[in-house]
Amino acid sequence: MSQGIADGRWPSHSRLPSIRELCARHGVSKATVQHALRRLEARGVVEARPKSGYFVTRLPEPLPPPRPKTELEAPRPVTISHLLLDIMARNGAFDLKPAPETGEAPYGITALNRAIGRALRRQRRSNFQYYDEPAGDAGFREQLALRYNRRGWPVTADELCVTSGCQHALFLALMACCQAGDVVAVETPGFYGVLQLLEQLNLKVIEIPARAETGMDMDALAQALERWDIRACVVSPAFATPGGALMPDEARARLISMAEDHNLAVIEDDIYAESGFEHVPDPLKARDRNGRVIHCSSFSKVLSRDLRLGWIAGGRWHDRILHLKLVTQLASSRYLQQGVADFMREGALHAHLRRERLRLREQRDELLGDIRQWPGTVGVSVPQGGLALWLELPDTCDTLAVYQAALQAGIVITPGPLFSASGDYTNGLRLSFAHPWNDRRRGALQRLPALLGLH
Amino acid sequence: MSQGIADGRWPSHSRLPSIRELCARHGVSKATVQHALRRLEARGVVEARPKSGYFVTRLPEPLPPPRPKTELEAPRPVTISHLLLDIMARNGAFDLKPAPETGEAPYGITALNRAIGRALRRQRRSNFQYYDEPAGDAGFREQLALRYNRRGWPVTADELCVTSGCQHALFLALMACCQAGDVVAVETPGFYGVLQLLEQLNLKVIEIPARAETGMDMDALAQALERWDIRACVVSPAFATPGGALMPDEARARLISMAEDHNLAVIEDDIYAESGFEHVPDPLKARDRNGRVIHCSSFSKVLSRDLRLGWIAGGRWHDRILHLKLVTQLASSRYLQQGVADFMREGALHAHLRRERLRLREQRDELLGDIRQWPGTVGVSVPQGGLALWLELPDTCDTLAVYQAALQAGIVITPGPLFSASGDYTNGLRLSFAHPWNDRRRGALQRLPALLGLH
Repeated sequence: MSQGIADGRWPSHSRLPSIRELCARHGVSKATVQHALRRLEARGVVEARPKSGYFVTRLPEPLPPPRPKTELEAPRPVTISHLLLDIMARNGAFDLKPAPETGEAPYGITALNRAIGRALRRQRRSNFQYYDEPAGDAGFREQLALRYNRRGWPVTADELCVTSGCQHALFLALMACCQAGDVVAVETPGFYGVLQLLEQLNLKVIEIPARAETGMDMDALAQALERWDIRACVVSPAFATPGGALMPDEARARLISMAEDHNLAVIEDDIYAESGFEHVPDPLKARDRNGRVIHCSSFSKVLSRDLRLGWIAGGRWHDRILHLKLVTQLASSRYLQQGVADFMREGALHAHLRRERLRLREQRDELLGDIRQWPGTVGVSVPQGGLALWLELPDTCDTLAVYQAALQAGIVITPGPLFSASGDYTNGLRLSFAHPWNDRRRGALQRLPALLGLH
Repeated sequence: MSQGIADGRWPSHSRLPSIRELCARHGVSKATVQHALRRLEARGVVEARPKSGYFVTRLPEPLPPPRPKTELEAPRPVTISHLLLDIMARNGAFDLKPAPETGEAPYGITALNRAIGRALRRQRRSNFQYYDEPAGDAGFREQLALRYNRRGWPVTADELCVTSGCQHALFLALMACCQAGDVVAVETPGFYGVLQLLEQLNLKVIEIPARAETGMDMDALAQALERWDIRACVVSPAFATPGGALMPDEARARLISMAEDHNLAVIEDDIYAESGFEHVPDPLKARDRNGRVIHCSSFSKVLSRDLRLGWIAGGRWHDRILHLKLVTQLASSRYLQQGVADFMREGALHAHLRRERLRLREQRDELLGDIRQWPGTVGVSVPQGGLALWLELPDTCDTLAVYQAALQAGIVITPGPLFSASGDYTNGLRLSFAHPWNDRRRGALQRLPALLGLH
């Protein structure tokens, strides 16, 4: 029923079928249906109206989108505070302070761990005494290629190289196609991990405004390419953090064509694509005819953050990336890749993702519903994938200033300035819906408007 | 018995106890003792002399040591061929071409995999949804610190940061303490992985001669420090590749004192230390009073090359290294570290290493015995730890030229020029004793002198 609501089968404010009809449709007892309805009511998804039955209450409605900056600023070196390190030391940028959660891991994780366990037990004398080949386990790359083939990209296993997660892939990509002092275009607001990489590699950044629905503004990028010598451009075409933007087809075509005209390396961060609630978009890389797109991804966002298994398709930089991976890290863990390959081969990843997308959409809806009840004028993105919402609070809000106070209250927020090299977005805030809502999380969320000074 | 010989209980050419005495000592039957003696005889470790009993035949004898270069060359950029990538693509620099070996993994690996499997099954909802903390799992670092405490270094868990293997640690170390164009001193012959890192990071190298017994020549380093502005020095004080040199106490003290006088960063590669046949030397880092030594290591050489788990103690560069790790890779895999920590906690690593050292010494002895029978004048190192021997062949030998021919014959050799940025050591060759000897390996080894043109 919750799925029916999430799928849009029962739109906002619509009446649900009667209890008798629901019993017949699902072949369950009246008590079961009543129990399910009570749970949905407790979550605020449906409400009982006397003598009328149950009605759907809460659905995401498009709210005013964030206002992107329009003026471009000249390329500059990157310097970001150590805020990110502090957030990571508190166990990840998850907006609300995590506590050890109990309960079993979901089915997908249990199946994954069983597959890895089997790969471990298969280890014989020959395995542990050798390093994995530089590109990674061929069977794992084969499974990855198959998934991409279904997403409209006819890649082969030979074009892929396994990395230690997506951040490692982005690092190798930038090291391969840029030299110290080069200018790199990024989305703003955009992923802080990329800004940190540019800082460490002594690259200059030019921030291109991104809209919460459609991502990087191609007009602004065109303008920047005319004025400055830009070496590379990092984009997340599918459900970019922080707002969850999905780049439309036309913008994708324009980006590829500009890359050709300006000899631009395009680094595609695909890490959120598989979370797409309605559909999983094709990678930008599928449009790349001349090896100008470097595709980076991992399973951290939709399977497990503890796998540390990512991959990269380096296009014309493939050999250099392979060499850089070898030199900086030698190899990846083979048994781990073999375990994940088995997990994919037996269809368990597919089943896991199907569940995961429904879960994420429900969690998004609950967060959106809560934010709609906040006082003050709050702009919020309504993403069709990804794990977070982007909020634009009134100009009087300073999310960076609130960081410490929120921490005292047991909440780790991700302040707006983290998503730019310019210190902008002091009134911006990313809120995650990655985790299931429980009373502790709901309580923290309810304290947030007051902490932010909303009234 | 083989252990008794390896331990030096029965020196070269000594007579073994009689069969009757051996039966009584080990509480086994005459047939068992005779079978064991026949196997040792087949391996050439003992020989039967008519009416006199069994005698020990083969023990490593110090052979002429390699002649290190003495003249210093000016710092230069590093350029090495893609030979290393080719060797790695053939499954690691293992000198003899590997084939899939059958048989069970040794006890240590089975216990390790069980411990990792248990850590996987303990994963609950809380684990897979969070990244590991930037420095790595605290329990694993605690176990590492305990091991180092026993090696004379009172390090705490807080001073350690977990990496993806030792090569990754060396990379972070160089990135943290050097900038493009800086000069770095290394051992020659020395580890090619470091040369590759210097090349990728645009660092200049100055090669300091190293002796097969005592490692980097401190007089030569002193001379180089007077003439050039050297930022960092990479050394392997314990069983350096390729020759297995062990740096004496006096040289260690001098190196630390020179580091103080010249504001030098010392990067210690400790990866072979735990293989020490007679004893495990204290780390150089134990003498470091002012945080000038960056200590790097992993379990790849003595436990499993497939773990991809290393660590670094960054001294005064600790915070920068933590930040670099976070930015280039985010995190390590937590369950893997927890599994290895359990393995250490239950004493299984200790037991594994005890067996491993005996096995490696036996394998070294068999390789040394074979080489002694080669024609021509061949200098060879006699290491007390590590996994390889370093050979200096007659000047007419060109090991690089032989590489392709050897490959045709099913042998992957590691040619001398790989161990230097200068193209020297064309007559040098590293031979590994990491793998148990079997008929296929023995056959390959016997074809080698002819391939090398020895006669």
